Amino acid sequence: MTLKYYHAEPVANSLKSMIPLKEKGLDFESVYVDLHKFEQHQPWFVAINPEGQVPVLDHDGTIITHTTVINEYLEDAFPDAPPLRPNTPEGNARMRYWNKFIDEHVMNFVSMHGWHRMVGVIARGVDSGEFEKLVERIPLHEQREKWKTARSGFSEADLANATRKIEVAVDKVEAQLGENDWLAGEMFTLADINFYAHCGMMVERMFPELDIATRTPRLVAWRDRMTARPGVAAALGMPDHTAPGLRTWTGHAR
Amino acid sequence: MTLKYYHAEPVANSLKSMIPLKEKGLDFESVYVDLHKFEQHQPWFVAINPEGQVPVLDHDGTIITHTTVINEYLEDAFPDAPPLRPNTPEGNARMRYWNKFIDEHVMNFVSMHGWHRMVGVIARGVDSGEFEKLVERIPLHEQREKWKTARSGFSEADLANATRKIEVAVDKVEAQLGENDWLAGEMFTLADINFYAHCGMMVERMFPELDIATRTPRLVAWRDRMTARPGVAAALGMPDHTAPGLRTWTGHAR
Repeated sequence: MTLKYYHAEPVANSLKSMIPLKEKGLDFESVYVDLHKFEQHQPWFVAINPEGQVPVLDHDGTIITHTTVINEYLEDAFPDAPPLRPNTPEGNARMRYWNKFIDEHVMNFVSMHGWHRMVGVIARGVDSGEFEKLVERIPLHEQREKWKTARSGFSEADLANATRKIEVAVDKVEAQLGENDWLAGEMFTLADINFYAHCGMMVERMFPELDIATRTPRLVAWRDRMTARPGVAAALGMPDHTAPGLRTWTGHAR
Repeated sequence: MTLKYYHAEPVANSLKSMIPLKEKGLDFESVYVDLHKFEQHQPWFVAINPEGQVPVLDHDGTIITHTTVINEYLEDAFPDAPPLRPNTPEGNARMRYWNKFIDEHVMNFVSMHGWHRMVGVIARGVDSGEFEKLVERIPLHEQREKWKTARSGFSEADLANATRKIEVAVDKVEAQLGENDWLAGEMFTLADINFYAHCGMMVERMFPELDIATRTPRLVAWRDRMTARPGVAAALGMPDHTAPGLRTWTGHAR
């Protein structure tokens, strides 16, 4: 049995499936894909994932893409490793409700700020002619549009709307954490990992205007419980090659 | 054990979880929610689903919302009923990959045309003062915005973009059906049900400009195999109270 994980820095999508791999204690080969060099759109990588996106899991030649799908796959394929999915129908439904909310609501709006602040810096760092060529090579139409928008910058109205959506999400999480210790109930699950990787781990740094420390104290306590988990800490400890000048969110000086 | 299913007409979301209930032969109480009367935003319904949306499954008091979550719940809760989920990790991953694509890509863009052509007629049929009151009562911000846009009409550019996304989706499905009889492999699964309910059952009627009959013959054959299944036929046979003038997509004259 060989597991290979193609990923970038330990944040967002790449972190989201790295945490389950570490939490479940699975032995895997790490393959770093350098997004600063646009390696995810290179022919060698597109041959693995035609959508040109990280992360990718290769399990004995079976290719799995999209983090929520990868994470449920790990539960199905390695039932003897510590579970991150409740073993009741209701628990699974609660977990999947949150995963859906995070995938379709939280992720897109955090991502807009991420693309504006970080990917924009990368996109604007490329010469015009070269940028056109890079964009042409991107397999997915949506991703091509996102790169172009990142280069020109998202509108203030779109960014403000995204921040408002994040505000709704953190309030929703705060309310849920008043009911249970973890998002889907009394058990730490893939839903917690999902929210942490996309938003929870860095929400204070990304959205200082939301005043997270006083607004959502249960979210802060939950975030600290997450960060303290050995599996999460191991995932966060994976190499971070973020280019200088792009480290605001991971706590480094710009 | 009692199952109660709150739903509207047998199309889109309401059809999507009705098909598994029928395919699995589960005994359930059907509760019709009249969207023409905005019952989904009435206090009695919002007390059941605070998001004010159909369908909802009530299983002995456990409330499950969002069709993809409901459908996986039915698999977890009724493992002895005929399965609609592959029993291999790879099969489940393929099914979930498609469900994600349909939920996040197909559904939203078909839905835009649906809201433009059908919900817009309903929204414009309400007096202005009354409409403001109805919109105020909608729990989700996104849904409030959608109702307002439906009333004024979506832009031609947005609608054309949505059609282009559907074009990508039907070509993707056609390619997949060249590999397998069903979307996730050799087995009929929740992924087929998802695509059928949101797009496949009516793609020719909705998007005549896509020339489906000659463009995607495998999709047409698949759609006919779907429609012929007794469980699908039973779901499609549920009462349809669509208001006169709104039936274009279900084949009736306007």
